[in-house]
Amino acid sequence: MGAKKKLKRKIKSLKSALRVQHAPAAKVALVSPLAPAAFPDLPVIKGARFASVAAGVRYKGRTDVVLAQLDPGTVVAGTFTRSATRAASVLDAQAKIVGDSAKGAAILVNSGNANAFTGAQGQESVAAICAAVAEKLGLPTERVFTASTGVIGEALPHDRIIAALGDLTTALDQDGLPGAARAIMTTDTFPKGTAKTVEIDGKPVQIAGIAKGSGMIAPDMATMLVYIFTDAKIARPVLHALVTGLTDRSFNCITVDSDTSTSDMLLVAATGQADAPEITEIDSDAGKAFADGLGAVMRDLAHQVVRDGEGATKFIEVAVTGARSDADARKVAFAIANSPLVKTAVAGEDPNWGRIVMAVGKSGAEADRDRLSIRFGPHLVATNGQVAPSYAEDIGASYMKGQELVIGVDLRLGEGAATVWTCDLTNRYIEINADYRS
Amino acid sequence: MGAKKKLKRKIKSLKSALRVQHAPAAKVALVSPLAPAAFPDLPVIKGARFASVAAGVRYKGRTDVVLAQLDPGTVVAGTFTRSATRAASVLDAQAKIVGDSAKGAAILVNSGNANAFTGAQGQESVAAICAAVAEKLGLPTERVFTASTGVIGEALPHDRIIAALGDLTTALDQDGLPGAARAIMTTDTFPKGTAKTVEIDGKPVQIAGIAKGSGMIAPDMATMLVYIFTDAKIARPVLHALVTGLTDRSFNCITVDSDTSTSDMLLVAATGQADAPEITEIDSDAGKAFADGLGAVMRDLAHQVVRDGEGATKFIEVAVTGARSDADARKVAFAIANSPLVKTAVAGEDPNWGRIVMAVGKSGAEADRDRLSIRFGPHLVATNGQVAPSYAEDIGASYMKGQELVIGVDLRLGEGAATVWTCDLTNRYIEINADYRS
Repeated sequence: MGAKKKLKRKIKSLKSALRVQHAPAAKVALVSPLAPAAFPDLPVIKGARFASVAAGVRYKGRTDVVLAQLDPGTVVAGTFTRSATRAASVLDAQAKIVGDSAKGAAILVNSGNANAFTGAQGQESVAAICAAVAEKLGLPTERVFTASTGVIGEALPHDRIIAALGDLTTALDQDGLPGAARAIMTTDTFPKGTAKTVEIDGKPVQIAGIAKGSGMIAPDMATMLVYIFTDAKIARPVLHALVTGLTDRSFNCITVDSDTSTSDMLLVAATGQADAPEITEIDSDAGKAFADGLGAVMRDLAHQVVRDGEGATKFIEVAVTGARSDADARKVAFAIANSPLVKTAVAGEDPNWGRIVMAVGKSGAEADRDRLSIRFGPHLVATNGQVAPSYAEDIGASYMKGQELVIGVDLRLGEGAATVWTCDLTNRYIEINADYRS
Repeated sequence: MGAKKKLKRKIKSLKSALRVQHAPAAKVALVSPLAPAAFPDLPVIKGARFASVAAGVRYKGRTDVVLAQLDPGTVVAGTFTRSATRAASVLDAQAKIVGDSAKGAAILVNSGNANAFTGAQGQESVAAICAAVAEKLGLPTERVFTASTGVIGEALPHDRIIAALGDLTTALDQDGLPGAARAIMTTDTFPKGTAKTVEIDGKPVQIAGIAKGSGMIAPDMATMLVYIFTDAKIARPVLHALVTGLTDRSFNCITVDSDTSTSDMLLVAATGQADAPEITEIDSDAGKAFADGLGAVMRDLAHQVVRDGEGATKFIEVAVTGARSDADARKVAFAIANSPLVKTAVAGEDPNWGRIVMAVGKSGAEADRDRLSIRFGPHLVATNGQVAPSYAEDIGASYMKGQELVIGVDLRLGEGAATVWTCDLTNRYIEINADYRS
C-alpha cells in the first residue's frame, strides 16, 4: 500500500518532468509574442474596393487571392526589391507603375506560390492574369498590377486564379481590406494593418495599409508585400517622391535576417476622392501633413513585419548617432541589427556589449574605438572606449529582460544618425527555417 | 500485485520517454563532428622554440599563455583585422611588423582575456608585456608581438602573464608547437594544427602552423589567431606579398557567422635556417613551390576554423563561376555563405535551392535570373532560371544528408570565379551564443 503510493508519486513526478520538457515545444507561439493586441479598425477609402476568396492556389480552407479595384483617377506609386533575381510580377509592375490614371487600376495578389524563378512560364502567368483581370474590370492591362507570394520555383497555377475572378468581382466591397490582410499571409502569425487620418485644410484624408512578411524573406514563402490606400488627391510625381523618401525611413530600416526577397513590393494607391484639396508639392503644409500620416502608416507596418520576425521574442531599436555621415550611421546600425552574435545575445537576455563593439568595428564605417559610447535604453554601458564607471552587469541584465529594447551607439565623430529596427535570433528561427519544407 | 506491475511498467515507459528527450542535450558534441581525426605530427622548425604554461589569466587548470622565441634572422609578416575597433595588441603588432630581423623576435599570446575595448589601460598592458618579454629574452621591444583572446572589455591582468615569463622561458622547446595550439584555444572544441614540407632545389623546407577560432569571432571570446612557422630563407617583402595574396584565398574566404573579430591576426615567421636556397622572388620556381606549401597550410587551417564553427554539423563549399568579375563572384559566394536562410536549410538537410536564388539576387553582383544554374555537388538543380528537367527533390534531399557539401552556382555571364567555405547554422549556435556568459 505504502509502496503503491510511492510508485504513484514517482509516476506523478515523472509525468511532471515530461510536461516541463514538452512545454517549450507546446508553447511555440501560434501568434508572435510581439503582435499588436488586435487588428485595428480601418477606415473606408473612397474609390477603393477589395475582395478575397479561396482559390486553392496551394493552401486549403483559407482565402488566398485578393483583388483591389480602384476608381478612375487613382494614381499609383511604388517601390520594388532591388534583387537581381526579381520575380516576373515585380518586373511587370515596375514597368507599369508610371502609367496613366484616367481609367482606374486593379491589384491582384495571390499567396501560396511566388511565381519566382519560373522562367518564361512565369511571365506567361503574369500576362494571363493581367489580361483576365483587365477584361473583367474593363481596364487596360497596363493598369493591372499583380504580386505572388509563396513557394519559389514552382509553376503558378494561374488558371485557378482566373477561375476565381467571377467570385472576386462579385465580392468587391469597400470594407474588404481586413480580409485582404488575412488572404496575403503566408508564414505570418498575424495579419498586419494600420490606418491614419490627417487633416488638410480642415478636411480629413484617410490612409489605410496592409502588409505581409515574416523574415525579410519568409522562408521559401518569399516576399514582403505592402499595399497602402488613400483618398488623397495627389499628383503622381509627388506621391512617388514621398513614397521613395518614406520607404528609406521605414521598410528600408528593418531587418529580420538580412535576407532580401525576390518579390518585395510596396504600392500606394491614391484615389483622389477626399474633399481635401490636391497635394501639389512635397514642401507645402498639405504635403507635410500627408507625409506625416503616410510615414506613420509605413513605419507602423514595417514595425509589424519585424514583430512577426520568425521566432522573434524581442523588438530591438538600434539608434546610432554621432557618425561622420547618415550613410555611416546606417552601416553601423545595420551591422549591429544583422549581427547573429548580437541577436543571439539579446535572445539570451545577455547584456553582451562587447558584441556591439565588434559590430561597430566590422561595419566599414569610420569609428574611433576610444570615443565610442554604448547605451542599453537609458543606461550608459560604455564610454570613451571602456566600460562606464556607473555600469554594472546586473543593470544590463535586468534591462535585457524587457520585450522592447533600445541599443544606442554614439560614435562622437559627427552629425550622422540612423535608426533601424530588428528582432532577436532564437532557436525558433532555426526550427522554422530548417524544417519548413520537410 | 498486477496493479503494482502495471505501475512499474508505467514508470519504465515514462523514464524512457524522459531519456529520449534528454538525449539531444546529452549528445551535444564536446568536439565538433567535423573535426579531423587527430592532431597532426608537426615538424621541428629550426630556429623556433615554443612554451605554454598555466598563468591563470582567467581559466583554471589549463595552459593559457604561449611564448614563441625566434632566432636572429627571422623575418615576420602578417595580416590583421580591418575592424575599426581593433584591440591594442593588434595595433601594436601592426606597427612593428616591418621591423628589422637582425635580433630575432618573440610572440606572446594569452587566452581568456582579449584586452579589447579596454582603453589606455589596454595599451599599457601591451607595453608592459612587451617590455618584460624583451628584457627576459634580450630583444628590442619592437621585436615582441603579442595577442590576447578572450572576454572583451575587461582589464587584462598582465602581471599574471609577466609573472609566468620565468616558467615560459625555462620551458621553451622546439617540440612545443602542439602545446601552443592547445593553450590558445577558447571556445574551440579541438586544437588546430597542420604542416607541409616543400622542396626547393632538392632541399626540404618545413612549414607548420596553428590556429584558433570558432565562430568568425568566437562569442565574447573574440578572435581568430593564426601562427605559422617555417625555416625558409625568404626576404620580408617577398614573404609579405605571399602572405597577403594567400590570405585572400584562405582566411578571407571563410565565414561562420559574418561577424568579424576586433583581434584577428595572422603571423608568419621564417627563421631562414633551412639548407634550401633563399627565396628572392614570388614568380621563381622556389617562390611558387613555397607558395604552394604555405597556401596549403593556410587553407587547411582556415578549413579547420570552419569545421569548428559554433554548432556546425556540415562543411559547405560555395563555388561560384561565370561571374562578370572575380569580385562579383566573391559577392555572390559570400551572400550564399552568410545567408541565415541557406545555412538553416542545410542544417535541416533541406535542398531548398530557392534560397540560393534569393541569395544570388541580393548579393549586389550582376546576375541574369534566366541564365543562372545551380548544382548540389554533381547534381544539376536549376538551369536557365528554372528547375532542371533532370532534377527531382529526392536527389537533392539525399545529397543534403552528407557532411561535406558543395553548392555550385554558374552565372554564365563571364569568367569571374570564387570559392568560399562555411558551415551550417544550427540550434546549437544559438544555444552557445545566447547562453555563453550566463
